[in-house]
Amino acid sequence: MPPVITAFESSPDRGRGLARDMRVRWALEETGQPYDVRLLSFEAMKQPAHLALHPFGQIPTFEEGELALFESGAIVLHLAGRHAGLLPDDANARARAIAWMFAAVNTVEPPIVELSMAGIVERGKPWYEARLPMLQNRVRTRLDQLSSRLGDAEWLDGAFSAGDLMMVSVLLRLRSSGLLDDYPKLSAYVTRGEARPGYRRAFAAQLAVFTGKPAG
Amino acid sequence: MPPVITAFESSPDRGRGLARDMRVRWALEETGQPYDVRLLSFEAMKQPAHLALHPFGQIPTFEEGELALFESGAIVLHLAGRHAGLLPDDANARARAIAWMFAAVNTVEPPIVELSMAGIVERGKPWYEARLPMLQNRVRTRLDQLSSRLGDAEWLDGAFSAGDLMMVSVLLRLRSSGLLDDYPKLSAYVTRGEARPGYRRAFAAQLAVFTGKPAG
Repeated sequence: MPPVITAFESSPDRGRGLARDMRVRWALEETGQPYDVRLLSFEAMKQPAHLALHPFGQIPTFEEGELALFESGAIVLHLAGRHAGLLPDDANARARAIAWMFAAVNTVEPPIVELSMAGIVERGKPWYEARLPMLQNRVRTRLDQLSSRLGDAEWLDGAFSAGDLMMVSVLLRLRSSGLLDDYPKLSAYVTRGEARPGYRRAFAAQLAVFTGKPAG
Repeated sequence: MPPVITAFESSPDRGRGLARDMRVRWALEETGQPYDVRLLSFEAMKQPAHLALHPFGQIPTFEEGELALFESGAIVLHLAGRHAGLLPDDANARARAIAWMFAAVNTVEPPIVELSMAGIVERGKPWYEARLPMLQNRVRTRLDQLSSRLGDAEWLDGAFSAGDLMMVSVLLRLRSSGLLDDYPKLSAYVTRGEARPGYRRAFAAQLAVFTGKPAG
């Protein structure tokens, strides 16, 4: 039996691939693993059956045999540890790739989420415009630093890894803001990620949930 | 040669143990590893020598032999993978402990940082009071869910793990807000973490940097 992941029945991003199941789908595709998807309504996500799998009532989850996991980063790391394709063999390079995974979710993503949440929840508030430069500058600080480190390299540390998978996924959340346009190296990095066959298969599969048409 | 970590020469929290080097010190103590500390000024953190170690110009970093790492979560996980004491032996239980590490830094910590940053940066702004309930509610949502999951258990999933180390460290950032007081199970959980000998040794060591008195 292939593993089962959960995803939104009706994704808030309308199939743009920004929901966090995309990260897990991408990792499954990069490692060549088949998988099944169980779609959840927002109501079902808050029910005890799902909370038993995911204490914070979110998606994705991952079930395989007796193992149930939550948190996209943890699921991607689990897959990367069990299947070739997402982590280098060398122990030190492996630890560095994992550091990039944590950097993606703990250092780069939070100011991006803060900016996009403000755009959704506080756009009509009198302070929205006044706060916007501060929120954008927090993101720019991280993009400046990340772009400096990446330089002209293809990926963050040698070959494509789970660290790049997570970082590209996090940066994609910025596309609609236009902020990424000021960073040609990072824009090209994201485009390289999106061009990978594994990304394209994963993207098509999540889009098919929204359009109702089968992927591929 | 023991590994070398970096920490603030002058910690913004005045030795309350909230800087992220504390997480790494705690992991080193739990696993019984000696270590050296290199203290950095804020100016030194932005210099090329440090940026080569930490692309985002922060602390902590971890250097051992040819390996250099950044991101406290990644360093704790690296230590947990190499030394006994922070991850269970069973593969599935290990994956679940790592899921709690990611949950700590990606699901629970961001709204806590957002709340505390607003208190530092926006306290004088006309919108501060109006936004405060929203920021507090985001944190409470996570605390409600975490408290439900923890229930009357001692730790999040069986024995104390790197997942608890990260989660307790994240929750400690809330103490000054008073929000934790409404959650007796989580307060007791944090207190259990702080009572561990490894935590106490790590806390004393980071406090000694601030007071100028040797630890212990």
